[in-house]
Amino acid sequence: MKPIPKSEAPPLLAFGAHPDDIEFGCGGVIAKETRAGRAAHFVICSRGEAASHGTPAQRVIEANRSAALLGARLEFIELDGDAHLEVRTAHALKLAGIIRRVRPGIVLAPSLVENQHPDHPRLGQLVRDACRLARYGGIRELRRAPPHAIEQLFYYAVTPEAEPPGLTPVLIDVSAPEILKVWTVAMEAHATQAASRNYVELQLTRARLRGLRAGVGHAIALFPNDPLVLDSLAQTDRAARRF
Amino acid sequence: MKPIPKSEAPPLLAFGAHPDDIEFGCGGVIAKETRAGRAAHFVICSRGEAASHGTPAQRVIEANRSAALLGARLEFIELDGDAHLEVRTAHALKLAGIIRRVRPGIVLAPSLVENQHPDHPRLGQLVRDACRLARYGGIRELRRAPPHAIEQLFYYAVTPEAEPPGLTPVLIDVSAPEILKVWTVAMEAHATQAASRNYVELQLTRARLRGLRAGVGHAIALFPNDPLVLDSLAQTDRAARRF
Amino acid sequence: MKPIPKSEAPPLLAFGAHPDDIEFGCGGVIAKETRAGRAAHFVICSRGEAASHGTPAQRVIEANRSAALLGARLEFIELDGDAHLEVRTAHALKLAGIIRRVRPGIVLAPSLVENQHPDHPRLGQLVRDACRLARYGGIRELRRAPPHAIEQLFYYAVTPEAEPPGLTPVLIDVSAPEILKVWTVAMEAHATQAASRNYVELQLTRARLRGLRAGVGHAIALFPNDPLVLDSLAQTDRAARRF
Amino acid sequence: MKPIPKSEAPPLLAFGAHPDDIEFGCGGVIAKETRAGRAAHFVICSRGEAASHGTPAQRVIEANRSAALLGARLEFIELDGDAHLEVRTAHALKLAGIIRRVRPGIVLAPSLVENQHPDHPRLGQLVRDACRLARYGGIRELRRAPPHAIEQLFYYAVTPEAEPPGLTPVLIDVSAPEILKVWTVAMEAHATQAASRNYVELQLTRARLRGLRAGVGHAIALFPNDPLVLDSLAQTDRAARRF
Amino acid sequence: MKPIPKSEAPPLLAFGAHPDDIEFGCGGVIAKETRAGRAAHFVICSRGEAASHGTPAQRVIEANRSAALLGARLEFIELDGDAHLEVRTAHALKLAGIIRRVRPGIVLAPSLVENQHPDHPRLGQLVRDACRLARYGGIRELRRAPPHAIEQLFYYAVTPEAEPPGLTPVLIDVSAPEILKVWTVAMEAHATQAASRNYVELQLTRARLRGLRAGVGHAIALFPNDPLVLDSLAQTDRAARRF
Amino acid sequence: MKPIPKSEAPPLLAFGAHPDDIEFGCGGVIAKETRAGRAAHFVICSRGEAASHGTPAQRVIEANRSAALLGARLEFIELDGDAHLEVRTAHALKLAGIIRRVRPGIVLAPSLVENQHPDHPRLGQLVRDACRLARYGGIRELRRAPPHAIEQLFYYAVTPEAEPPGLTPVLIDVSAPEILKVWTVAMEAHATQAASRNYVELQLTRARLRGLRAGVGHAIALFPNDPLVLDSLAQTDRAARRF
Repeated sequence: MKPIPKSEAPPLLAFGAHPDDIEFGCGGVIAKETRAGRAAHFVICSRGEAASHGTPAQRVIEANRSAALLGARLEFIELDGDAHLEVRTAHALKLAGIIRRVRPGIVLAPSLVENQHPDHPRLGQLVRDACRLARYGGIRELRRAPPHAIEQLFYYAVTPEAEPPGLTPVLIDVSAPEILKVWTVAMEAHATQAASRNYVELQLTRARLRGLRAGVGHAIALFPNDPLVLDSLAQTDRAARRF
Repeated sequence: MKPIPKSEAPPLLAFGAHPDDIEFGCGGVIAKETRAGRAAHFVICSRGEAASHGTPAQRVIEANRSAALLGARLEFIELDGDAHLEVRTAHALKLAGIIRRVRPGIVLAPSLVENQHPDHPRLGQLVRDACRLARYGGIRELRRAPPHAIEQLFYYAVTPEAEPPGLTPVLIDVSAPEILKVWTVAMEAHATQAASRNYVELQLTRARLRGLRAGVGHAIALFPNDPLVLDSLAQTDRAARRF
Repeated sequence: MKPIPKSEAPPLLAFGAHPDDIEFGCGGVIAKETRAGRAAHFVICSRGEAASHGTPAQRVIEANRSAALLGARLEFIELDGDAHLEVRTAHALKLAGIIRRVRPGIVLAPSLVENQHPDHPRLGQLVRDACRLARYGGIRELRRAPPHAIEQLFYYAVTPEAEPPGLTPVLIDVSAPEILKVWTVAMEAHATQAASRNYVELQLTRARLRGLRAGVGHAIALFPNDPLVLDSLAQTDRAARRF
Repeated sequence: MKPIPKSEAPPLLAFGAHPDDIEFGCGGVIAKETRAGRAAHFVICSRGEAASHGTPAQRVIEANRSAALLGARLEFIELDGDAHLEVRTAHALKLAGIIRRVRPGIVLAPSLVENQHPDHPRLGQLVRDACRLARYGGIRELRRAPPHAIEQLFYYAVTPEAEPPGLTPVLIDVSAPEILKVWTVAMEAHATQAASRNYVELQLTRARLRGLRAGVGHAIALFPNDPLVLDSLAQTDRAARRF
Repeated sequence: MKPIPKSEAPPLLAFGAHPDDIEFGCGGVIAKETRAGRAAHFVICSRGEAASHGTPAQRVIEANRSAALLGARLEFIELDGDAHLEVRTAHALKLAGIIRRVRPGIVLAPSLVENQHPDHPRLGQLVRDACRLARYGGIRELRRAPPHAIEQLFYYAVTPEAEPPGLTPVLIDVSAPEILKVWTVAMEAHATQAASRNYVELQLTRARLRGLRAGVGHAIALFPNDPLVLDSLAQTDRAARRF
Repeated sequence: MKPIPKSEAPPLLAFGAHPDDIEFGCGGVIAKETRAGRAAHFVICSRGEAASHGTPAQRVIEANRSAALLGARLEFIELDGDAHLEVRTAHALKLAGIIRRVRPGIVLAPSLVENQHPDHPRLGQLVRDACRLARYGGIRELRRAPPHAIEQLFYYAVTPEAEPPGLTPVLIDVSAPEILKVWTVAMEAHATQAASRNYVELQLTRARLRGLRAGVGHAIALFPNDPLVLDSLAQTDRAARRF
């Protein structure tokens, strides 16, 4: 597989249930991809209005600042509201419409593990279904744009508990100091959330532990929804075990 | 990750319990890698002397012919003999010595699934342990060569039953006509085994089914022992679901 | 267990989300059962109106032709429409009402694996729940017909990805030439779907691979929702491993 | 599948690590099969010499009495001795030789679950491997008898902990009073073991619980090593859920 | 961990989908906790109006009598009605409101295993989500009471099929004669349900089997939603294997 | 369960394959238990003679210093030597003899996960089997001491990869500054191992991540071999989810 020159690579599309989910779950990966020239587009499905801290207005400002730091465009959409998300076909179709509009190669969504914030696995399910619906030619609600098939759907895990035990992850090396720096700053941009819990430390500790295991500084795990198809084993020349 | 020019890529090292295991399990992958310029080295741990068909002498001739077709060097070693393999440290150390001598990047071994020919999962265990032992500096029996750390261990499945349910595979596209052709011919080189059962048809049917699922002609699944570490999502731009 | 003379056997009831799901997932089994004298009844829950190819009117014609070839009666029902199915109690009750009317022994439904067309696992869930609701005496909406307990619910997998990894399948031998023939023709009757993808080849390749593994020509896997209860081991005198 | 008249059915071959394992794990199934006319052959691989209660001489007498009650022939063999069993190829070959001599259809062995008496899963592994080795034509140590392919290997669980979580069982209905009676008496024949623990009560309670779940009086679960191959769904007309 | 004097221990809160679920699933545990001085509160989410036996009025009387026997307070709520429960955010919020009002330490809910009465796993999901929602400060519908974080959520299994295979249970010893007695009487209080099936025998057999395995008389398994946090291994000085 | 006054509690017995395994895998737990008055006994099964760094003599000195810091007694035994361990009955019997001599309540052993240093899971298997063999009255080699039944076997994970995915852990809170301090110093006592890799940082990062998830400072996970038996839910009043 010859790597496509990044400027021509199809954009990356990441979905988050709350204004800070993408940053906390896989912000370092976003930073790395945008620094390498790939366009990134965020879709945030609530304004965090059920959280213990921060007003919706503050959350929107924080999310915009954070996305700018990561080099991503940002769009808010309304589904059922924070802590109220349900799995409805209408939602999946709305997300499929966005997929047809953005036409991404890679899609990122929160993992399907049930034992976490209920909005996370539900959004993961909706995105997974939306990736399929975006391909079907006969869906009335989607006629505005031509069908689109993405290349790969990866799940990110907002917390360690959300890592799906049945899927072998791929690890993205985010050790470069400028990547770690921008990721940290992007997480800290969600200042209302940092007040009460050690979210930033949790994520950096997690990435450090992944990195120590893989023989790099820090790493973030992504969980592929379907097996990767490779042209050559040259694409897999590094593995994740150093202890 | 910039692909290393193939001529400089470290060799691929594949282990087989019987003279035809590598060809039936992942011969198409070998053909693809050697055609792309990577050196391949086979280690065969018996002469098939317990099989229902073919003499050891015939099996050795067939294996040499088949390896030549695939562009691989071949070496036979003695462990406990066909259908007699046991998991012993002495065997793992012997394999670790070979790893230190060949100094491969990628290692291929039969999968660990127990419900198959008992030699297969035992060789898989021995290779997995050997990859580790090859790294430890203080092992007396291995002092002849400096420690060596491989990059990745992949398991291949000689039959569909041997595919490990708990590991997400990577799929290697082997659809190119010349690759399919050389793989088929290499399998047919094991003529004594083709007599009684439809082994060649089994493997081509299996690769065709994988290919149909992945939207390519034929594909072979390999199962990574450890998570892949990637520098960029550009390395994963294709996925395996087309239905 | 003395086999009940087939003419007295309770009918088989198969549910499909789309006009071709039953045929592609387990058409060979249907052919075998109807040829042996068992009545078969299909319930199709959409007209395929979201598919990329074929109009609903064409799909209905194809489905009727295909069911006739397989010797099954066919009934279309409306739930939420193609690609719009949701898990609602009202739907499960509707299916339970059909179960009370048809009074089947064996029920077939698409598998519960999530990573496939979203309508498939949702219909599978609805059918599973409906089999239970059909037994409860006090449900207001079901009073028209007396409660009915089915004997066994089997899941079929429309694609290989839909095969549930946690359930040991039973394999049905569909090697007889007249069975293979009628199954193939029934799949080909869905001509609008055959245009773009190799669906028929996918299913025959899959059944051939199962057959090669089991030492028969072709075989189809069904996945029991609950353990089978047997009177004697004489009912299990063949097993599925030949390699 | 027409049931073979029992007198012509190939014999059932059951392996036990200790003199009472077969009776406690699946004695009711044995009783049912022998009463239906199938020959049963027991191979016991130790004399229970490491147990807390009973001398080897007492255990042999008890085992013979119990086998007679169940209608089975009995043979003791020596492997490594009670509580000393190891997984060695020589043992698997010895068991394979017995398989070639007895030429069974169905084979029963203790389950592979590791967290039980260590002799149990090791014997299970040896029997599984022996079933394969018995089929291979070129094994020097087995030349005395022609190769033999069994029909199905089922695992029994000596205790509830030994039930393998990943295999869907088949349940054998052992509710008939004469079957329950002979099973109970056969377990009680191991009088030295009954002294200290409630083994008989454990097994009857377990079978009663299985029976209550399946809508019959008592049932015993067997775990197939490979998928069952069926000619018709008529063989599966009962299932195991009644609550 | 110094055990809190029971009278000061926060109450136990148990949810049931039907009037008898708590008693059949874990009544012995309730009896034990209330006898030790802990307050228990039951929330029953239907009146059993879809059952084959018993009128809603009878079921309410039975449930009240049974709760009184177990020493628990009882509250009925309306969600979608018996056999009609759906997973809706509005329901989870209603349950979260109850959690904020009762302010329990331990919460009990039916397990999430899908292959049982559909109301059970859905209520389990709703309770799990409610435990989380009860903690979030910004949820409009919950403003009446301050946020509350429970200590642990345990699942109970109404039938053996409902025991979740992926969670290691903790076993509660309910062997004391007065505990067994009150549990039995509380189950028998649901006289309308005892008529048709052996529910009481099923549960006592199940607890006896658990007890036999653990070396006690009778035991009930609970399945923790999250790992237990212990101060000392002294809290874990007994384990569950006696055979 | 009334906690036994610690001075009367039976000792804790921990097995390690190499001189530093216990400290790196669960040293904080040991520190906590010995500070609370429980006796701890370490059995180390090699002198680390295959490691890349440190001589056996250095390793023994380091291990003794570390055990002293943790308040544990230490004993070295010879099995097959570092990186050479095999699963042999003779080894299990040797360990069982130690269990009969030390007569522990709780036993700690490395986890059974295969994809780690091969000595670790093999020692784990040997300890698990030894715990059983120690109970059997008739084993000739063990006659010197009376049978002994331990209370619980917990597995520790030397690295994150060694954490068994199928067992729900219990988390031990090791946040107290004096506990963290002594654990760190005990790990650092293995100075020859600290040179080349960040072992100490790996373990502290891992415990910090567990702690962040559980709402405490640092925590260590232990994996019970069998379900815990509890007298009361009061023993489980804290759980591990804070995000």
